Amino acid sequence: MSAAPRFGRIGEGLVAPAEGGERFETLLAAGGGRVERIVSLGQSDPPGFWYEQEGEEFVLLLAGAARLGFADGTEQALAPGEWAVLPAGCRHRVAWTDPERETLWLALHLPPD
Amino acid sequence: MSAAPRFGRIGEGLVAPAEGGERFETLLAAGGGRVERIVSLGQSDPPGFWYEQEGEEFVLLLAGAARLGFADGTEQALAPGEWAVLPAGCRHRVAWTDPERETLWLALHLPPD
Repeated sequence: MSAAPRFGRIGEGLVAPAEGGERFETLLAAGGGRVERIVSLGQSDPPGFWYEQEGEEFVLLLAGAARLGFADGTEQALAPGEWAVLPAGCRHRVAWTDPERETLWLALHLPPD
Repeated sequence: MSAAPRFGRIGEGLVAPAEGGERFETLLAAGGGRVERIVSLGQSDPPGFWYEQEGEEFVLLLAGAARLGFADGTEQALAPGEWAVLPAGCRHRVAWTDPERETLWLALHLPPD
């Protein structure tokens, strides 16, 4: 017997995150990877802060607007339906999210090779 | 030096798949997992056919309409924004996809635990 399937709506309960931080929810964690739903409302990472992960990440913007920043000084704007692959070791930060409406992200973290 | 990030639009080139099958595109494969974009147009899996995977799968419907079928005879309709977690060993099939418009799926396959 395998576990039963689970279902949900990615936009369910899409409300402004509590003061001071994005809201992270893990939808699935297995095999060293995980699926996260992230809701932002104006948050960004401080200059000089970098995410730098051992595994690859795939992120899809589903609502709102955001900009990712990279260690070479470039930024990439993301609109709904746009995705980014963040390779292992690729330093990145959230440079901006829309302060006027919720930004909804789906992040897929793959285990290290 | 890490690899450079990559960017894209999940709905880019959303055209009817070639006769006879869904269109599968791997957007990222790493660490034993992979991220796929799937475009369907009326396809379904034949009765009695089951996907049965060793790792967990997360699937998000982004456009169109579909129904998943399970070995206990139940079906689950998916509309845009709805997701399913298909546990390891959970037999499932695509029971129906809308024949009138493209159905767009994002699928994440995680490696076995």
